[in-house]
Amino acid sequence: MVYLDAASGEPLDPAGREAYLAALDEGWAGPDRLYREGRRARMLLDAAREAVAELLGCRADELVFTASGTAAVHQGVLGLARGRARAGTRIAVGAVEHSSVLHAVDLAVRRIGGDRVVLPVDGFGRVALGALADLLDQGAGPALAFAAIQSANHEVGTRQPVSAAARLLAEQGVPLLVDAAVTLGREPVPEGWAVLAGSARKWGGPAGVGVLAVRKGTRFAADWPEDERERGWVPGPVNVPAILGAATALRARAAEAEATAERHRELTTLLRTRIPELVPDVEVVGDPVDRAPHILTFSCLYASGEALLLELDRLDFAVSSGSSCTASTLTPSHVLEAMGVLTQGNVRVSLPWRVSAEDVERFLAVLPDAVRVARPQQAGGAAPGTDAAADGAPESAAPTETPQPELDIDAVGKLCPLPVIELGKRIRQVEVGGTVRVWADDPAARLDIPAWCRLTGQDYLGEETPDSRPGVTAYRVRRRE
Amino acid sequence: MVYLDAASGEPLDPAGREAYLAALDEGWAGPDRLYREGRRARMLLDAAREAVAELLGCRADELVFTASGTAAVHQGVLGLARGRARAGTRIAVGAVEHSSVLHAVDLAVRRIGGDRVVLPVDGFGRVALGALADLLDQGAGPALAFAAIQSANHEVGTRQPVSAAARLLAEQGVPLLVDAAVTLGREPVPEGWAVLAGSARKWGGPAGVGVLAVRKGTRFAADWPEDERERGWVPGPVNVPAILGAATALRARAAEAEATAERHRELTTLLRTRIPELVPDVEVVGDPVDRAPHILTFSCLYASGEALLLELDRLDFAVSSGSSCTASTLTPSHVLEAMGVLTQGNVRVSLPWRVSAEDVERFLAVLPDAVRVARPQQAGGAAPGTDAAADGAPESAAPTETPQPELDIDAVGKLCPLPVIELGKRIRQVEVGGTVRVWADDPAARLDIPAWCRLTGQDYLGEETPDSRPGVTAYRVRRRE
Repeated sequence: MVYLDAASGEPLDPAGREAYLAALDEGWAGPDRLYREGRRARMLLDAAREAVAELLGCRADELVFTASGTAAVHQGVLGLARGRARAGTRIAVGAVEHSSVLHAVDLAVRRIGGDRVVLPVDGFGRVALGALADLLDQGAGPALAFAAIQSANHEVGTRQPVSAAARLLAEQGVPLLVDAAVTLGREPVPEGWAVLAGSARKWGGPAGVGVLAVRKGTRFAADWPEDERERGWVPGPVNVPAILGAATALRARAAEAEATAERHRELTTLLRTRIPELVPDVEVVGDPVDRAPHILTFSCLYASGEALLLELDRLDFAVSSGSSCTASTLTPSHVLEAMGVLTQGNVRVSLPWRVSAEDVERFLAVLPDAVRVARPQQAGGAAPGTDAAADGAPESAAPTETPQPELDIDAVGKLCPLPVIELGKRIRQVEVGGTVRVWADDPAARLDIPAWCRLTGQDYLGEETPDSRPGVTAYRVRRRE
Repeated sequence: MVYLDAASGEPLDPAGREAYLAALDEGWAGPDRLYREGRRARMLLDAAREAVAELLGCRADELVFTASGTAAVHQGVLGLARGRARAGTRIAVGAVEHSSVLHAVDLAVRRIGGDRVVLPVDGFGRVALGALADLLDQGAGPALAFAAIQSANHEVGTRQPVSAAARLLAEQGVPLLVDAAVTLGREPVPEGWAVLAGSARKWGGPAGVGVLAVRKGTRFAADWPEDERERGWVPGPVNVPAILGAATALRARAAEAEATAERHRELTTLLRTRIPELVPDVEVVGDPVDRAPHILTFSCLYASGEALLLELDRLDFAVSSGSSCTASTLTPSHVLEAMGVLTQGNVRVSLPWRVSAEDVERFLAVLPDAVRVARPQQAGGAAPGTDAAADGAPESAAPTETPQPELDIDAVGKLCPLPVIELGKRIRQVEVGGTVRVWADDPAARLDIPAWCRLTGQDYLGEETPDSRPGVTAYRVRRRE
């Protein structure tokens, strides 16, 4: 089994595991207890806190441990919003933040009676600093409570301009919250954060530990039941054995971070280069250079993300996906959506710490066939092996049909990638300059039809939602060639 | 080392530990992932959920796993309050609930714009059902959102009348939240709960797992950031390996629960009987019969709780305490306060699963000397070995002084147990029928001076807080004999 979904979490790092098991025996008592086992647990906790604080670049008394990375994000967002509520009630949040950040911000603005402004991203998924600057310039708008910008994106890897954003915000005394889960233990912590959140699982630590750092002087106030543990910033106990495992894993990772990052970068660069050579009609997304070293995402036209994931699993490769068919919500990834890129047949590869070049080569070897399996040409298309099937595009309309000036395609009830497949198959049934209307109720169609146009050189004209067909949208495409 | 603080948590149960370690290798992937490791984690999680649900007496789809017992309580309280907010905004909570319940209820009433009513307890710490009935009868009062009553008390062991309370509440369709942390895995789950919370650490499971069960039909709504995992009732991930350890530990415990409870009951009964025989001026509190089998609390007049804990630790016994000097807040346990019992020199003994009779005998053997060390008679009192010191009471005033009709004792700035020691030493300086005023700013004095009166047969007249000395209270005692 080749595991390529490290961004979701990895098996426990060996050093971290060893520390954790030892601490199960040594640090199981409550660190607030006065007796010996309690004092020992307290010492272990203090040592772990010092070690992690040093690695994060903060003081020990600025750092608390939470029950998970999600909890760190939630408590960071809610605590900062509550603490800053008198100073400002507007929260600026990057469009491609992890959903835990977005959900926490949604709740925070409800609680403080404020509003949320989403900072748009460019095609690479990078936050537009100009939008942030505009927000800060608006004399008439509400004052900002804080802004939330991740260190790098968890789906596409693109690094965010954290320090530049922090400087902009600092001019107006507005704090910056940074979800650094993607880069902690891999890259230096970016400068300028007022609140920093991370997840031990993402750096090879055990489940059940998150980190939340709050710079001294930052207004921060509990928005949860009172609890005197962890400075009142965390509603719940500390899991001392897990924290020890987390601290040990982080230290082990940090010691190898540069070398590992270099190795990961080479491998993801190889993937970025080779995949479009091996697989037709594929879009590799995210910044090719300014990115976290271990993450790569690409989307395949006409392919089902779920089918691709399952086929890769059958071939012993574990990856994840941002396609709608792989999400419990059946909507496509908000990250890909914000970037305006193709979402169907999406695969995210994230390299585990000790991934080998052989693992990656094996993946490249099986990928083309896996994509073919995930491309349902058989649904009325060419047989496998024909030219049309080989290059991925659905078989075009039979040449004897005369192209029409207009065409309506009814794809209602068909889920991604079928609406786009239909469009791909039938575009030549309309004359050059003619218009196709694709009727669909699939949420991914809103994103993938424009992306298809971009990738195939056609013109996207827009969408209409006529009252006559509630819940259905008509996407208009003009055939350019 | 003899560990007698099981109520805070115990080392990981061996069966649970084994299951946990195996699951670290098998269940580390996200259970929502489509690939093999994810599906395996999902299967392990589902199996654990079924097992725990069966042991708790609920359906699998009524049960979610939280990040800790504290989180289960918080989310139980906040979710029930939010779900019931249209039906009622008043929350009734037992006076001796765990502080996590009280803090969560405080926040819940703020959020739903309601109020909290504390249900008083009797001298044993049992909730007065009459007060609950009155609350339900009050036509004019706000409707009840819910009531929170624990299965048994974590400090004194007294069982609460959960089922009777549930029946009362059910007549008006008001749900009952039960914090069952003290009894899960030891005693049958009481009937009638709508929301049930528990902590795996308390049943020998690993840290990082709580259980929250919500009966179908109970109005329950997330009061935290959206998160589709665990039915939206939990803002955060599931720790599959820890959950497996928790389920295995619970099953192992449940299999031995009856025999262990019997053994524990014999040992705590022994302690309840022997301690007053061995140690003078001691109050053993809580219901002697209707109690959890493994918990015992007693308070020692004239003793410092912290000194007693540390002396017992020096002698290799780990216990906990409800005395103010052992609390980070420097206030005495709210449980002992609500019961109106002595708080100084307080020791809570809670038996670990495999405690032996020898452990308990050894504890009884060292206790008298440990209490002597914790009783600072030397502070102006008899030397150790004299009659006065042997029976615990501070040396009385020298017989040549003539008793006065009134006496002021200035104990301002002196912390528990010094104000009571002063009172004990000098009560005979006032004539029979005369009044002593003890001036003190120690929070425990409010509870311990009345308790001292009760234990020594004197009359407690009440307290005054004159404006002339802000922050200081005068406690009035009449010498009866």
